[in-house]
Formats: sequence, C-alpha cells, structure tokens
Amino acid sequence: MKASRLSEAKLTILKIGGSVITDKNEELAARTQEINRLAEEVQEAGIKGLIIVHGGGSFGHPSAMKYAIKDGLKEDSQKIGFSETHHFMTVLNGLLMDSLIWHDVPAVSVTSSSCITTENGRIKHFEDAPVRAFLKMGFIPVLYGDAVIDTNMGFTILSGDQIVSSLAVRLDAERIVMGIDVDGLYDADPKVEKTARMFRRITSKELKELQSRLREPTACDVTGGMVGKVLELLPAVEHGIPVIMVNALKPGYICNVLGGKKVEGTVIEKE
Amino acid sequence: MKASRLSEAKLTILKIGGSVITDKNEELAARTQEINRLAEEVQEAGIKGLIIVHGGGSFGHPSAMKYAIKDGLKEDSQKIGFSETHHFMTVLNGLLMDSLIWHDVPAVSVTSSSCITTENGRIKHFEDAPVRAFLKMGFIPVLYGDAVIDTNMGFTILSGDQIVSSLAVRLDAERIVMGIDVDGLYDADPKVEKTARMFRRITSKELKELQSRLREPTACDVTGGMVGKVLELLPAVEHGIPVIMVNALKPGYICNVLGGKKVEGTVIEKE
Repeated sequence: MKASRLSEAKLTILKIGGSVITDKNEELAARTQEINRLAEEVQEAGIKGLIIVHGGGSFGHPSAMKYAIKDGLKEDSQKIGFSETHHFMTVLNGLLMDSLIWHDVPAVSVTSSSCITTENGRIKHFEDAPVRAFLKMGFIPVLYGDAVIDTNMGFTILSGDQIVSSLAVRLDAERIVMGIDVDGLYDADPKVEKTARMFRRITSKELKELQSRLREPTACDVTGGMVGKVLELLPAVEHGIPVIMVNALKPGYICNVLGGKKVEGTVIEKE
Repeated sequence: MKASRLSEAKLTILKIGGSVITDKNEELAARTQEINRLAEEVQEAGIKGLIIVHGGGSFGHPSAMKYAIKDGLKEDSQKIGFSETHHFMTVLNGLLMDSLIWHDVPAVSVTSSSCITTENGRIKHFEDAPVRAFLKMGFIPVLYGDAVIDTNMGFTILSGDQIVSSLAVRLDAERIVMGIDVDGLYDADPKVEKTARMFRRITSKELKELQSRLREPTACDVTGGMVGKVLELLPAVEHGIPVIMVNALKPGYICNVLGGKKVEGTVIEKE
C-alpha cells in the first residue's frame, strides 16, 4: 500500500480483537499493557480519518454466553444478563478510551446499542450522523461489539466485525485493518495445528472456497472466531475495500500498518 | 399522587443531579455511598416504566469549563477537551450502572452523544428508537448530560435537564422527579440566603414570574444551576407533565416518591 493513498479524505477502520486487549481464558481480564501500547501506536501513527472498533473478549462474551443474549429475549431472567453484558463492554471500552485520551488522541466512544438496532442479528438501522460528524471534525470514533436491540428477537449480540463491515461500506473506507492475536489468516487454526499455512493474499472468491475448511475458534466467542470474522467482512471486501489482517500483539505492527508501511500479515482483496 | 396512576404504561423520568452523586467542590469525586443508596432505592421502589437521567457534577463540568466545550469548536486544542469531557461522563455513568446492576436493576446506559445531535445547543435530532425499545421490554434506560455534536457550533454541552424535558414530551411521561441536593425550589438560593422560602407548589406561570428573581448557582455548573434546571423543564410542564423536586440526599425520599408516596418537596404544574 502506498503512503500517498492515505490522504485526509481516506478512511481506515481499525478493528482491535477482543483477544488482543483481554485474556479470553479469564473473566474481565484486561491486558492493560497491550491497551496502552496500542494507544501509543495509534498516537504515533497520527493518521487522519480513523475509526476504531473493538471486540468484547473476556468482558462481553462470558455474560453473553451465560444468559444466551445472542438467542434473543426468551425469559425475564435474561434481562439482567443483557444489562451486565452491555455494562461490561462499556467498562472495557472505558479502559481503552482512558488510554487513548491519556496519549492525547482525540477519541470519542460511540455506543453501538445507543445508535444501532438489528433485525434477526443483522444491522437494520444505524444512526451514523454522530460518527460522520466526529470524523469530519477530526475525532477518532471508537465503537465496539455490544448487546443491542433486535426488532424481531428483542435483543441480540452485535459483533464488532459486523460493525466494521457496515461502517466500511457506508463510509466508503479505503481499508480495514484487523488487529488480531495471530499473524494472519491460516488454512487451519494455527493455535491447534502446527502445520497451518498462512495466506499472504487471498481473494474473496478463494475465501469462500476456504470457508468450509476453517476451524472453530479455540476459546469462547459468541460472535464466532476467525471464521465469523472473515465471513463478516466479505461485504466490505466485495465492495472493493481491502482487509489487512495483522498481529496486533507484535509491537509496532499496528503503528506501521496505519502509517502505510508494509508488514507481515494477510491481505484480503476482491480480485 | 395516587399509586393507581402508576400503571405499567405510565412513565416516570427520574433526574439525579450531578451535585447529588458527586462532590462538586472537587474534581472527579464520586459520592459512591449516595450512588449505592440511590441504586438501592430504585430497586426497592421496583416501578415499571422508568428512565433515569443524571448530571455531570465534578466529572463533566471541570473539563467542559476548562475547554469551553459549551461555546462550540473554535480551535483544535479543544478537541481533546471534548474527548475528556465525554469520557469522564462515561466513567461517572459507569459507577451508577455498576451499582444499579449489582442491585439487580435491569438498567442499560444510553449514550446521549451517540444518539442526539443539537443545533445551537438545542436538541435537533434524537434517535430514540433504542430508548423506546428498552422501555417496552422492561429495561431502565439511563442517559446523562454529555458533550455532543452540534450541527452549527461543531459541538456543545447538552444538559441532563434538556434531555429530561425532551424525553418527557416525546414519550408523554406521567411525571418528572428531580432528585436534587436541596429540599425543593426556593425563591432564593437556600445555600446562600437563610431566609430563602421553599415553594410547595408552583405553576409554570408563577415560575416565569419568579425567573428573574432566582439567583445564580453557587458552584461551577456550565449548564446552569437551579435556574437553568427549572426553565429547561418548562416545555414538559406546559405539556401537562408535573415536575416533583425532592431532596435525593435524604434517605428514602426517592424510593417513596417513585412508589407514589407523598414526600416533602416542590411540585411544578401547568395550572
């Protein structure tokens, strides 16, 4: 990617995986060192036109699983679980916002459940006027996967990945950067299979062919693991927006990729 | 007020003043004991159809003042101040949400700046579908005064009081309960003038006459003190929605008034 493409009008959407900023083997376990390092990398990159979306990791997923929030409202006892899931997401978001602002990054959290409703789990209405206005003024809007209102199911879980894809298409983003906890997209789960092979570049067509071969994620993730993530981004890829998957746990990678430098990872493109 | 009026379809909007849940003489000083007591009172009251809106107190106001956020975007250096003001509000909100959920209250925070934009400081667009849906499902939406996008000024401060008034009118609330740090509405500032006289009942007409005689608030409050609060509620009062001002620092008062019991305070009515 050429640095010249990163003009002021161009938009990058950076997804930070829940498994990057939390320890998914524990409950409510934030990786504050990673959060602070990533905030510093965003500051250092200093690019214009950036939206950050983060996942839930060990903050959102355990409550969401326990109360089956993704399946919709079926009994009253789930309600406190919805409240809890959303609240824990705001707590994780608060840790990231705290660090971004501490690093002098003009970031503003935008609460997904306050401006998005879904229908059968798919984004139906997205009041994006605040996000657009924040971007135009030079702020960095920060959204996150959340427990949201669903017009048919009562409520459900909306993944950060679906938010990324929706925002990318509606705001005509230049690129999507997926900060994950592995080096890129593999033909099998690299955490399980030693022989897993990483793709440097893959097209949406090849991705669909790969789909059935991708393994389930290793840890609890109600929004799906790498399979769900990648499939969720297909609408954006087919819209012509490249996705760059990089290891956000490797220091400097996010800063470099935001700054337009080439780093190790997987690029997903239309053709 | 008769308890029978509090049917499931009826809506109460409870405003909790920033001076109740924070110490306005310090910065970022939450009164966690009051927050926990109020969460317990909301739980005990157990009413259906409730929205809570809270103010900023020592979380929102100092940053908002320092960076003149209410005056709109005039220079780039204000941006981090906007980020900070909004972030501090989410932190205060998080403390209240934490306590409500701990008390088994199915509360869901709704971020004002994510769904409201103003024009010259007045609410212009309010995407209230999530609030309506949360209410319908039996959740308690919790909003708060916030730093918001203004279509003309870039950004500004939106007071919790304006949110209360707007929500009351658009959702046709049965009543507004204003939890404040004094016993009611006085003809002068009771914190300054010992001879200040409290009103038991006042009409909107009498209120307008009183307007010019009300004193400025004693502590820093960019959204105005009692003067601003009361005037901000006039549209709701003239819509036929009574406002009950009670001392939220007095244990049991909020629980009683939510439960339909008569407590000491000031009632503002249309006629």
